[in-house]
Amino acid sequence: MAFLRSLSRCLSRSFSTSAAAASIPSAGGGLSPTFVGREKPRVVVLGTGWAGCRLMKGIDTGIYDVVCVSPRNHMVFTPLLASTCVGTLEFRSVAEPIGRIQPAISRAPGSFFFLAKCTALDTESHTVHCETVTDGAGKTTLEPWKFKVSYDKLVIASGSEASTFGINGVKEHAIFLREVYHAQEIRRKLLLNLMLSDVPGISENEKCRLLHCVVVGGGPTGVEFSGELSDFIIKDVHERYSHVKDYIHVTLIEANEILSSFDVRLRQYATNQLTKSGVRLVRGIVKDVQPEKIILNDGTEVPYGLLVWSTGVGPSPFVSSLQLPKAPGGRIGVDEWLRIPSVQDVFSIGDCSGFLESTGKPTLPALAQVAERQGKYLANLLNRIGKAGGGHANSAANVDLGAPFVYRHLGSMATVGRYKALVDLRQSKEEKGLSLAGFVSWFIWRSAYLTRVISWRNRFYVAINWLTTFVFGRDISRI
Amino acid sequence: MAFLRSLSRCLSRSFSTSAAAASIPSAGGGLSPTFVGREKPRVVVLGTGWAGCRLMKGIDTGIYDVVCVSPRNHMVFTPLLASTCVGTLEFRSVAEPIGRIQPAISRAPGSFFFLAKCTALDTESHTVHCETVTDGAGKTTLEPWKFKVSYDKLVIASGSEASTFGINGVKEHAIFLREVYHAQEIRRKLLLNLMLSDVPGISENEKCRLLHCVVVGGGPTGVEFSGELSDFIIKDVHERYSHVKDYIHVTLIEANEILSSFDVRLRQYATNQLTKSGVRLVRGIVKDVQPEKIILNDGTEVPYGLLVWSTGVGPSPFVSSLQLPKAPGGRIGVDEWLRIPSVQDVFSIGDCSGFLESTGKPTLPALAQVAERQGKYLANLLNRIGKAGGGHANSAANVDLGAPFVYRHLGSMATVGRYKALVDLRQSKEEKGLSLAGFVSWFIWRSAYLTRVISWRNRFYVAINWLTTFVFGRDISRI
Repeated sequence: MAFLRSLSRCLSRSFSTSAAAASIPSAGGGLSPTFVGREKPRVVVLGTGWAGCRLMKGIDTGIYDVVCVSPRNHMVFTPLLASTCVGTLEFRSVAEPIGRIQPAISRAPGSFFFLAKCTALDTESHTVHCETVTDGAGKTTLEPWKFKVSYDKLVIASGSEASTFGINGVKEHAIFLREVYHAQEIRRKLLLNLMLSDVPGISENEKCRLLHCVVVGGGPTGVEFSGELSDFIIKDVHERYSHVKDYIHVTLIEANEILSSFDVRLRQYATNQLTKSGVRLVRGIVKDVQPEKIILNDGTEVPYGLLVWSTGVGPSPFVSSLQLPKAPGGRIGVDEWLRIPSVQDVFSIGDCSGFLESTGKPTLPALAQVAERQGKYLANLLNRIGKAGGGHANSAANVDLGAPFVYRHLGSMATVGRYKALVDLRQSKEEKGLSLAGFVSWFIWRSAYLTRVISWRNRFYVAINWLTTFVFGRDISRI
Repeated sequence: MAFLRSLSRCLSRSFSTSAAAASIPSAGGGLSPTFVGREKPRVVVLGTGWAGCRLMKGIDTGIYDVVCVSPRNHMVFTPLLASTCVGTLEFRSVAEPIGRIQPAISRAPGSFFFLAKCTALDTESHTVHCETVTDGAGKTTLEPWKFKVSYDKLVIASGSEASTFGINGVKEHAIFLREVYHAQEIRRKLLLNLMLSDVPGISENEKCRLLHCVVVGGGPTGVEFSGELSDFIIKDVHERYSHVKDYIHVTLIEANEILSSFDVRLRQYATNQLTKSGVRLVRGIVKDVQPEKIILNDGTEVPYGLLVWSTGVGPSPFVSSLQLPKAPGGRIGVDEWLRIPSVQDVFSIGDCSGFLESTGKPTLPALAQVAERQGKYLANLLNRIGKAGGGHANSAANVDLGAPFVYRHLGSMATVGRYKALVDLRQSKEEKGLSLAGFVSWFIWRSAYLTRVISWRNRFYVAINWLTTFVFGRDISRI
């Protein structure tokens, strides 16, 4: 093995006859403050959602080093996530690695992506405390370790968390639909239940339960998922699981109206379409979630095999733990320039933030559209500050920030399955304006999304996925 | 909710104000013996590998009902599995759902796929005992249940198991490369290690360990995986993880020679190619596998971050448990017609079977090629028996079986990464014949595989995957 002994700095370490030194990461490691004049100022971004990714895409890496801290190394193209559960799209097609959004992160010497979560914030010393995320290490468990990162500018874009409204059992038994692994779990469970219900010896009751898919929450995500699911049942289950096709049902439970933010005619259209494609719409409030059934407020028991929960979002424990002034709903409070006014050099965008009451502006909805617009605005603002020489910590006091952030709603979209979608182009709920439903809006919806999927690779893949689903049907292998 | 009460037979069960009957699958359910004259004879196939799937594809469903029992609802296109670990191909592209291979399974009233494993065999009463596989049910655990299936013809094609040669720690710490979930685990771990090694606070030793990828076993799978991995490092890690590119290494450990079944010139070519692309070839025998290092026979300690084990296969516990005459190596013994001679109507094909010594024929290698040829042969044989009226249990005694199974080796192929492959067209190890190496054989290899991936959908997807990898590079999102 003589030829092995001189390749690189790792080689001597990787073959040794002495006991290899057990290597515990040194406590307290991290990135120190940048030197003014010698180093670029460092923007630290917490999160890789729509807001954080749009910001990183727009940041001028000639001015700043970018350090991203997130438990996820990719952005999820959330509007298409529901389609992946039933195999219309591949999981990979809706995930965009951060290095493709901002290549400097994988190449520039001072820019990094850290697979970690932020645990605490020290705004006095301009430092974030982080801890590595090591789940998925497989059989060998790896102890997470802590480190610190000093920032010149900090952007908190860590997003929100699915709300359970304090209902017992939701976290234990329901599946949310916010991450790719949620979609994977839904897919695995749906296919498992389809196969198990075909095995001899199963009772009729159990078969009905296993194949009862319940969706709680009638917002765009719940409606889109119900639509995709009923489409999958009509087109694919009838052909490929024909033994059990009469047993599978979808129920959508909503406390108020479905798609409550949409125009009344669109709501009526969506209700008709869903009912026509076999989705049962139930108005009810969930009281308790048990392993195989949910209990509604009126005492009705609903057995289920698959339970998907999409009732809205609220602040994450990290956001709640921050000692900063809050906006209504527990979000981090920001001013018109998306700054946290009480501290220096800290900004917040996306679902985790909201305008402070003192701004007189309403809290914006937790939409991809809002997050994306805020990310874009803040990238330009930081670039402006950096160009004016205010990039380093505590040096932006006299920079002219320009126009504040103003949100203009471009319209809402939702699919209801089977080449049907709704597009609501009104500025707000109260106004009148254009609303579309049917094939034309489905086509607009698909085109709009195709042009917003960030990389050409994924645009290409999504188009190919849609084409193959159309030609060959959906994929049903359970891997 | 009045509108809910009359949709289908499941509806009354799925909403109830009384307590829903807890539904335990009835014990002892199953498929009874078929009635001669009134029902088609039933072929029961255990397994969804190359052998079982090729058989099911070729079976005449006008003659037989087909019941497949397997813990996996898809066939894995194993020769391309190594490529999926590093993102050259998508996981979905190498998995073919059983319903696409034999559509009758999802449609014909008497044909079924059962997600289950066979636990015992009663050849006297022509019955297999099964138990459902319910892993992956997510948060809610589902108790597996038992059932029985009567067969007219039984085909045991349940495959083999990766051998550990009794070495301590292999099952706990190494990852095999035989199923799609293995490839997913390898991918997740590789990307996790790449990201963790970039986090501040990690020691140089730990960084070297995390990024040391060790492959044990120098057969085609081990060589192909090492080649793909070094290709991934050269092309993708250098660009997208440039901070850690000098730390990542691949070591291939083999007790004898790599690709020992190949022509000596091809072996030399493979050795040169792998060494040139940075793979270290080590001749050694593994003595012990510990969580973060392996110990070789000579005392050398090799720290690793990722350990892939591909040293060959042996009989599974199910095959070992069967009270049937065995062929050399513990496989199920069959005669020249692939029958188990001591019992009626039972056949065995693929890696789990071998010729009985009494046949005077050698045990065939555990190759996809052999399994595929046996599946095709046995489908024809069963069709012949069925046409002659011997389809039902105990009725084939006087049927002329025709020519026995003869295996003709068509050549071996292996890739070594970077558009290079080996093709050995010799009939056996001792003979002389054509052997090719380099780009031409890589092209032959890719074309040969493309035409053997079963469905047009997957042929199309594999071609698209290769094209996008070539144009855009590999995908690195960790989902």
